[in-house]
Amino acid sequence: MSTRKISDSMVRRLSGYLRQLRFLAAEGRRVVSSQELADEAATTAAQVRKDLSQFGSFGQRGRGYPVVPLRDELVRILGLRRPWRACVVGAGRLGTALLGYEDFGKRGFEIVAAFDVDPELIGKEVEGIPVLSIEDLESEIRTRGIELAVLTVPHGPARRIADRLAEAGVRGILNFTPTRLRARPGVSIRGMDIAVELEGLSYRIVTGGEPGGNGA
Amino acid sequence: MSTRKISDSMVRRLSGYLRQLRFLAAEGRRVVSSQELADEAATTAAQVRKDLSQFGSFGQRGRGYPVVPLRDELVRILGLRRPWRACVVGAGRLGTALLGYEDFGKRGFEIVAAFDVDPELIGKEVEGIPVLSIEDLESEIRTRGIELAVLTVPHGPARRIADRLAEAGVRGILNFTPTRLRARPGVSIRGMDIAVELEGLSYRIVTGGEPGGNGA
Repeated sequence: MSTRKISDSMVRRLSGYLRQLRFLAAEGRRVVSSQELADEAATTAAQVRKDLSQFGSFGQRGRGYPVVPLRDELVRILGLRRPWRACVVGAGRLGTALLGYEDFGKRGFEIVAAFDVDPELIGKEVEGIPVLSIEDLESEIRTRGIELAVLTVPHGPARRIADRLAEAGVRGILNFTPTRLRARPGVSIRGMDIAVELEGLSYRIVTGGEPGGNGA
Repeated sequence: MSTRKISDSMVRRLSGYLRQLRFLAAEGRRVVSSQELADEAATTAAQVRKDLSQFGSFGQRGRGYPVVPLRDELVRILGLRRPWRACVVGAGRLGTALLGYEDFGKRGFEIVAAFDVDPELIGKEVEGIPVLSIEDLESEIRTRGIELAVLTVPHGPARRIADRLAEAGVRGILNFTPTRLRARPGVSIRGMDIAVELEGLSYRIVTGGEPGGNGA
């Protein structure tokens, strides 16, 4: 049951298993097969067994995995035992779409504020979430205990705002901007580059169109 | 210069190198170091050299890589020598945000139509792109030669619409829905699950917060 470092791709698979386990737990299911978990994470049953064997002896041969204990263990491994407090920086169209993304709450991420430069938006609520002035970024992050930021600002100010987020104590940034952010000690950064995903599709199609690396 | 199958993570790195090469080419740069490419793709110079060595003998020891020839080779490898014709299915907030995403065009993806069920939207244009009725999905895809679809519909109709896209001849789907799509022969699927990325951030933070798997 160690929490040693595991690869990004394994973390993605564990997220996929967790999503399926949450769904099954809500339905009242008690046991799940490695094949069902594999389908959800777009991997193989053998890979599921290999991944989960690293976290102790879940599941009995031929009997599958117990849904609730395995869910709770994955919640623990992924650091989701308490909700993360997050903000969206940039309340444009993408930011606004993300503010309405109901999966955040279900998955353990509480969006507590949005930040923008637009005086028309500042002081209003979008999807019940207050839009605050980017001028108050540092103080609001500290006051509200914000730990994660979803960055959807334009390229121009992206790096400067990421630096300010890091200075203010944010520990993780999900980067939707087209800008590569500078690495900062103590701040984890993940990029969501939509064009990179499309290029991945393009590659798969021209090389023979295997049916999807990740159907999730 | 083969186009044999390479891993998803390598395809992502090649996309990162390509993004940097396009930027440098526009600036008129002629040579780039493996370290500069590594920074852009959030990897190491050694990994860059290893990746690129698989596609022939680019670059000379100590001299770096020629920007334009390497860019053109990566464009070829990733299947981007001609633009892909794409549509956005679901013109809600996320779909609308994507219709305005200017990087699509620059990266070789031409969004030629959006589809929705909302009579208020059908027949209008958003960001200069016509919104068509989802009832006409199959005929419009064929008429307009659409090859890729970006799926942003709700969970309810997601699988059925993905099946219709596949039937109509779409070869790749970028799936923004929370629904795992069924694999179909000849159709590549990639998922963009924002909560999975946040869970990846959470894991990195609780295990010590390395400064970002992918700063892109």
